[in-house]
Amino acid sequence: MQGTRLDTARIRAARRVIDPVFLDTPLYRCEALEPLLGCAVSVKLETANPVRSFKARGTEVVASRLADRGARAVVCASAGNLGQALAWSGRRRGLDVTVVASRSAPSAKLDRIRALGARLELVDGDFDVARERAAAVARRDGIRLVEDSLDIETCEGAATIGLELVETTPPFDAVLVALGGGALATGVGHVVKARAPDVEVICVQPLGAPAMTHSWRRRRVVTTDSTDTIADGVAGRRPIPAVLDDLLLVADDAVLVREESITAGMRLLLDHAGLVVEPSAALGVAAVLEDRDRFAGRHVVTIVCGSNVDVAAYHRWVGAAGRHSA
Amino acid sequence: MQGTRLDTARIRAARRVIDPVFLDTPLYRCEALEPLLGCAVSVKLETANPVRSFKARGTEVVASRLADRGARAVVCASAGNLGQALAWSGRRRGLDVTVVASRSAPSAKLDRIRALGARLELVDGDFDVARERAAAVARRDGIRLVEDSLDIETCEGAATIGLELVETTPPFDAVLVALGGGALATGVGHVVKARAPDVEVICVQPLGAPAMTHSWRRRRVVTTDSTDTIADGVAGRRPIPAVLDDLLLVADDAVLVREESITAGMRLLLDHAGLVVEPSAALGVAAVLEDRDRFAGRHVVTIVCGSNVDVAAYHRWVGAAGRHSA
Repeated sequence: MQGTRLDTARIRAARRVIDPVFLDTPLYRCEALEPLLGCAVSVKLETANPVRSFKARGTEVVASRLADRGARAVVCASAGNLGQALAWSGRRRGLDVTVVASRSAPSAKLDRIRALGARLELVDGDFDVARERAAAVARRDGIRLVEDSLDIETCEGAATIGLELVETTPPFDAVLVALGGGALATGVGHVVKARAPDVEVICVQPLGAPAMTHSWRRRRVVTTDSTDTIADGVAGRRPIPAVLDDLLLVADDAVLVREESITAGMRLLLDHAGLVVEPSAALGVAAVLEDRDRFAGRHVVTIVCGSNVDVAAYHRWVGAAGRHSA
Repeated sequence: MQGTRLDTARIRAARRVIDPVFLDTPLYRCEALEPLLGCAVSVKLETANPVRSFKARGTEVVASRLADRGARAVVCASAGNLGQALAWSGRRRGLDVTVVASRSAPSAKLDRIRALGARLELVDGDFDVARERAAAVARRDGIRLVEDSLDIETCEGAATIGLELVETTPPFDAVLVALGGGALATGVGHVVKARAPDVEVICVQPLGAPAMTHSWRRRRVVTTDSTDTIADGVAGRRPIPAVLDDLLLVADDAVLVREESITAGMRLLLDHAGLVVEPSAALGVAAVLEDRDRFAGRHVVTIVCGSNVDVAAYHRWVGAAGRHSA
């Protein structure tokens, strides 16, 4: 794909430094979902690994390059999954990892970051406030700041999913990608558009956190004052210009979905695919639920990008109460 | 491993005829489980595939050999997972598949068998009654009867899991294997004992379906009149002598666990690993819960062998009511 910040040779190189436990993840048809969604559905499952999300593909690249250079410490802001992944990747390479996160991030994510040995600093405010604080920590301590989606390693790591997708047969018609900061969408999108340009790359974001989608549609950065969604993993307000530039080159569409579609998607994935997913990972199914005609008879791949949920909230989302309205 | 019916070269050959979607399944540490279980825990995940259990490893071998010989039809008895797997493997090779199952098998399993295009014949009675009926169908129609655990292909298919386990690093101390008919235990056990003899092979069965465990302990076939367990996938009454002979050579132990330990194991895997598992797939965790001292500080692998559950029953097992007693 010409023009993006990504490069296929570098993505292939990234594969070689990522612990194999995060690579070659399951990709399989979920026929039990298909009568309900009206299309062929394959799942790319990024949750069956030590950090239960795709983020370690990127942090493995970051941490291995830092370790090669003899770095000792690193800091990132995180909605929860990047922090876990960086903690995991840093721990095995002897890096001191600091994660800055919102006090309102899911407890399960924060607990795992601590359990993996990272220093966790909590801020009052949301992910974008945490980003500012992480940058300040990096300046103060003179250490590497990892910026999700901006730092090319995070995009290259995510892009290795794209390599695994385009090397599969039979081919599929569309890939549904959760859209937050944009590392996953631009990484996967770059590879898919370079290698299988007929496959539609559709980004999906919650209506309650639409900044990047609005930016994509208007072809310029649009920020929002707040977010309101259970999909904590994609709830940003301030798109990064360089990431938007890439997204404009690789995304065929960006769609917004309602909260009730996200919970319905989580329920479908639990009941008919046996998969626990966090809200961000149900965005693809939510998009199909909201626009069945668009996908009718086609073969879609949805990237199930994470499964880190607070147990009580998860049971509330998928539980008996919601089930009646399903 | 000398003496069993299995052969490592044949197991390697089996790998080559199994659709890759069933091979090289995730194997990863679940650190979030470890404080609760008091030992290092890795999961070998056999649920992220089109039939949500390990059984297709065996049916792929069966069906490919049948197709090579020009066979047109095949029949099996099944508790539900073998039938799904044979239906899947047979469908893509143009085989007419008949599955005989108990009317009381989980609806989810029976529905999937039908959805995959197999002819489903239901019997009043349990799995061992279905076995008799399947044998009668095979005689009547002159077609191949697939007998789980007796037919060497089913053991060879399961044994490919063993190959994937022993090729991993770091090594582990024990593997916990659900014990039903014995294909999984003898297949995995054969490879582990041949290649990593210091690794303990521990078979786990419900107290409510203890026939094979009693047989292993007494070194002769012991049958029971009935079974009483939620672990439908391993609920047999009549061990097969040839399979017991193999099990005697490869199992270091066979243990029985209580129903409440099975549901506690299912809950732990859901809440702390984000995994939906059927009762049989929680047997390994149940065994650790019942004997923490035995496993303290060791590294165990538990094979999560299936996730086909009836949704209502699953929510009852893992739901709020059970949660209070956890």
